[in-house]
Amino acid sequence: MSERYLLDRWYQAAFSEEVGDTPLARTLLDIPVVLYRAGDAIAALEDRCPHRFAPLSMGSVRDGAVVCGYHGLAFGADGACKHNPHGKITAAMRVRAFPVVERHTVVWIWMGEALKADAALIPDLGFIDRTPETARIRFHIPTSANYRLVTDNLMDLSHADYLHPTSLGGVMTGAEVTTSLKGETVVTQWINRDCLAPARFHARVPPPQRADAWTEAVWQAPAVMVISTSLVPTGTQRRDEDEVRALHSMTPETASTTHYFVCGTRGDRLEDVEYSERLRGMLANAFIHEDKPMLEAQQARLGNASFEGSRPVLLAIDAGAVQVRRQLDRRIAAEQDAALALA
Amino acid sequence: MSERYLLDRWYQAAFSEEVGDTPLARTLLDIPVVLYRAGDAIAALEDRCPHRFAPLSMGSVRDGAVVCGYHGLAFGADGACKHNPHGKITAAMRVRAFPVVERHTVVWIWMGEALKADAALIPDLGFIDRTPETARIRFHIPTSANYRLVTDNLMDLSHADYLHPTSLGGVMTGAEVTTSLKGETVVTQWINRDCLAPARFHARVPPPQRADAWTEAVWQAPAVMVISTSLVPTGTQRRDEDEVRALHSMTPETASTTHYFVCGTRGDRLEDVEYSERLRGMLANAFIHEDKPMLEAQQARLGNASFEGSRPVLLAIDAGAVQVRRQLDRRIAAEQDAALALA
Amino acid sequence: MSERYLLDRWYQAAFSEEVGDTPLARTLLDIPVVLYRAGDAIAALEDRCPHRFAPLSMGSVRDGAVVCGYHGLAFGADGACKHNPHGKITAAMRVRAFPVVERHTVVWIWMGEALKADAALIPDLGFIDRTPETARIRFHIPTSANYRLVTDNLMDLSHADYLHPTSLGGVMTGAEVTTSLKGETVVTQWINRDCLAPARFHARVPPPQRADAWTEAVWQAPAVMVISTSLVPTGTQRRDEDEVRALHSMTPETASTTHYFVCGTRGDRLEDVEYSERLRGMLANAFIHEDKPMLEAQQARLGNASFEGSRPVLLAIDAGAVQVRRQLDRRIAAEQDAALALA
Repeated sequence: MSERYLLDRWYQAAFSEEVGDTPLARTLLDIPVVLYRAGDAIAALEDRCPHRFAPLSMGSVRDGAVVCGYHGLAFGADGACKHNPHGKITAAMRVRAFPVVERHTVVWIWMGEALKADAALIPDLGFIDRTPETARIRFHIPTSANYRLVTDNLMDLSHADYLHPTSLGGVMTGAEVTTSLKGETVVTQWINRDCLAPARFHARVPPPQRADAWTEAVWQAPAVMVISTSLVPTGTQRRDEDEVRALHSMTPETASTTHYFVCGTRGDRLEDVEYSERLRGMLANAFIHEDKPMLEAQQARLGNASFEGSRPVLLAIDAGAVQVRRQLDRRIAAEQDAALALA
Repeated sequence: MSERYLLDRWYQAAFSEEVGDTPLARTLLDIPVVLYRAGDAIAALEDRCPHRFAPLSMGSVRDGAVVCGYHGLAFGADGACKHNPHGKITAAMRVRAFPVVERHTVVWIWMGEALKADAALIPDLGFIDRTPETARIRFHIPTSANYRLVTDNLMDLSHADYLHPTSLGGVMTGAEVTTSLKGETVVTQWINRDCLAPARFHARVPPPQRADAWTEAVWQAPAVMVISTSLVPTGTQRRDEDEVRALHSMTPETASTTHYFVCGTRGDRLEDVEYSERLRGMLANAFIHEDKPMLEAQQARLGNASFEGSRPVLLAIDAGAVQVRRQLDRRIAAEQDAALALA
Repeated sequence: MSERYLLDRWYQAAFSEEVGDTPLARTLLDIPVVLYRAGDAIAALEDRCPHRFAPLSMGSVRDGAVVCGYHGLAFGADGACKHNPHGKITAAMRVRAFPVVERHTVVWIWMGEALKADAALIPDLGFIDRTPETARIRFHIPTSANYRLVTDNLMDLSHADYLHPTSLGGVMTGAEVTTSLKGETVVTQWINRDCLAPARFHARVPPPQRADAWTEAVWQAPAVMVISTSLVPTGTQRRDEDEVRALHSMTPETASTTHYFVCGTRGDRLEDVEYSERLRGMLANAFIHEDKPMLEAQQARLGNASFEGSRPVLLAIDAGAVQVRRQLDRRIAAEQDAALALA
């Protein structure tokens, strides 16, 4: 199974906290990459020494360069060899360096043409910056499924009532769903007015009071989503402190595996670390023990066949997911057309 | 490695006791199948939701239908969608349903053309029904070998003296062997007159008394065998209570893996549950720790090559196995010729 | 990935101590082989019964023959069937037999044309015979990397200063390196005069005394190396008792896995078994926890691509490894040309 990715966009390579002074190895879009901090910047290099193909990530970081653990060749953040203990440095002693920007607690990587890397294309995730660390909940969930299946799962949140009945579900059935295209983004909203709040919201809207539930999933190419939810007493205004908002980032590792990153934030009980831990447990259960096995089972049933080629019977609830797949396909095709025109 | 199976015949999908109110997932002839009880009948459906390809076996059973655990689509025993919580039901919302018959404590499945499914083709295993549950011993042994190798192993029981010297062996060497074709079945008999009984029969025929040992293996297409054995004092008549009889069923999971089912019965000590447990231990050792590793090692040595293509040096003891392979090949060829004639 | 091996040469199949009266299964050059002692000789047969392809190594050894555990066919050291309990012996009942010579505590096997097997081609490893068993240290390290990568690793010992800084390293940086071709062998020498001895040699050359370090790697086709090292006070003569010498033998198991054998000897403290155990621990750490992961990571980065095809950036330190690869390629090509000329 091979996959054509959208190249000239930013993908999440890691969370900021994952990258430090020791090399981090991570395969992204089929390419082995090594990440490390070089002074104020983060370096991202092809994780394969040009000498004998040892992974540079098995080495160490010294003076802003990663030193191969096999024979001591050192490469700087620009990919050029900085030190060869066995002779002079030649132009061939070089590894590919990828543009990296650290923003919103996320390490963004550009796997396409380096000259085109434009930090303005990084999605605005200011809500993460505005949330104190005590109210942020992060996950990195390696998932054995194509990244588009993970995106599909989130563009169609109706699954929550079936797959997550005791945790995230309870406000989707009966909701009015709309999908729209806003510039570069696909937005799906679920609005469930005058509904019965699920148990986890009873502290906020005790029965027999009725509630208005609002959920929004915003997708930006290639694979970054922000999901926001809010539940308030029927007829009242949504307030910031009622809102739960999370980044979901689906970076392809290979054609059949995905780095699924999540960073959840909330608007209330911002300093309540114990509450954060309880939420983390609930979310871990939903993402790791409910979503992940279902996504991996889907991928297993698909095998090497493509999703579209397997002719799925699509439902109304798939409007958002279909729109996203279409957007992605168009941009990948445009990128390839441009590459052919240049060639 | 791909394999052409005989399709228009009954295969054992499971033992009756394995199928209940929760879905049972089992791959049969390369196809993922989900089995469950729907009222008095047993349903067998393709284990892949047509919506997003989730395994239906990850869902639950309600009102005779299996409900997808991902988005709640429900499918009845006939494969048609019974409930779509997200809109109306269309003709495309359907999974393949396989004919199933429950008989002789076995769940039989028809993986070929449904219209041709004929319960009269199910092998007569009345001996299982006539044996009380206390004297039945069942195994389901997943084996990483092509189902034909498992059949070969049983059509050539001379291996017992070498592979199972301390359990099932001891009456094969010196036996007179005959193989015959009786209608649709292949029968091999081993008759060892005036032989020395192995230790496990000494209670019945104490030395220096001599014994007559009789063994019969009956094969029916595609992969169902009944093996009967009896040992009596030389010159005396075989009696029903001396006879040990077992179903051996080899259902292909994939080209290189097999669901090997065994149901052993006996004619004596019918209510002796403790004796059953001792027998079970002995048989488990022979089937799981002696046969299975040998079959899997054979398969490993063959790799992707076919058995015949690897040009085995066949011996007189292979007459039954060769006859079975020939019968199977003929029927598969006939089935394919008929399909081509229709096309 | 397929690989063309040099066939008409001796490979190490095992150490003498590994082969006894029970069958030893070992895949060599992609061929499953069974080894066992048959009287004074060692037998090496294709590990696949010609009857039903069971591994003969799952059987037992009796009267110099290996008896198949499935149906009792017995094969002698010449590969011919010696016993068929089920009928007469035919010419087809035969497995391939490989020439074997036991010398220098090593079991050598000839995987090419048997008639060409010439014991004079076995490398002279007399140093092993001259070392008492108390001062020999043996390893068999199954390594998931092509055998040429393991050879490269040893022809370029400069890696020791980087990969083994706390054990084997410390005398390579600054050494004068020469590679030469002596008849059939490739020899690389590292001479480091007037250097600082690493800590492990301080008992012999205490600081601030200076040392002369000498290291030599001798390769013989197809994959046998002898590595010798010595460190003495600067300006003094090397003595036999200062010398550490080891056999390193890289026998291909498959194109991407290697049986890496090591037998280390030394010139001093010959009866000191406790010292041997300490050395064994240090060497195990270097070979198993440092070399093996690096070699396997290299292979993983190469995947199915060839080393040369991946266009490595070679350094001066690779002169020996490159020379060995060239010698090997030439001999393999010559062997294939000869085979074509005959055909």
